[in-house]
Amino acid sequence: MAEATKEIHHLVLAKFKEEIPPQKIEELIKGYANLVEHIPHMKAFHWGKDVSIENLNQGFTHIFHIVIENSKSLEEYVNHPAHVEFGNLMFPVLDKVTVVDFSPSALPI
Amino acid sequence: MAEATKEIHHLVLAKFKEEIPPQKIEELIKGYANLVEHIPHMKAFHWGKDVSIENLNQGFTHIFHIVIENSKSLEEYVNHPAHVEFGNLMFPVLDKVTVVDFSPSALPI
Repeated sequence: MAEATKEIHHLVLAKFKEEIPPQKIEELIKGYANLVEHIPHMKAFHWGKDVSIENLNQGFTHIFHIVIENSKSLEEYVNHPAHVEFGNLMFPVLDKVTVVDFSPSALPI
Repeated sequence: MAEATKEIHHLVLAKFKEEIPPQKIEELIKGYANLVEHIPHMKAFHWGKDVSIENLNQGFTHIFHIVIENSKSLEEYVNHPAHVEFGNLMFPVLDKVTVVDFSPSALPI
């Protein structure tokens, strides 16, 4: 399969600012989940709170896991007006964020 | 479903030290993938290189995505001798690492 046609897994690790109330965070997560309805190449959305036990979470508390159809559509996802609008709500309430994308392989070669 | 019985997704974001040669990294990834054969509650292993386009990867270049049977077995995974042994090979070659675990939900509530 050509690289460009493989699914992309889009991971967002977030830490919200301490003053952000839980109901505001919940509202944002609903808004994030709702992007699936608006962005054609966004195939799945899942999230969860960090439950790690190795003390290596670097302060991140929330994980968002989005599946994008392929690497070509990643740019379309990032630049989609619904994503840009959501980003404008999300970024100001974050203390820190890391975003990575990868095409999952079972083996190193 | 009780929280303790849900699958846990274990994410490792890594940046290798610059002096580590590609063949050493490849060997380590093979060793990581091979843990599935040794750790009973490790259900899946996937990895990929970061291909993100938003300039928010904070320098991370490799993503490892492991599925653990449930939150009870996360501790067993972390403390398993094969995992500890692998960690002793992996940690010294990393420039930075973040590890988070989450139980994926589709909705915020």
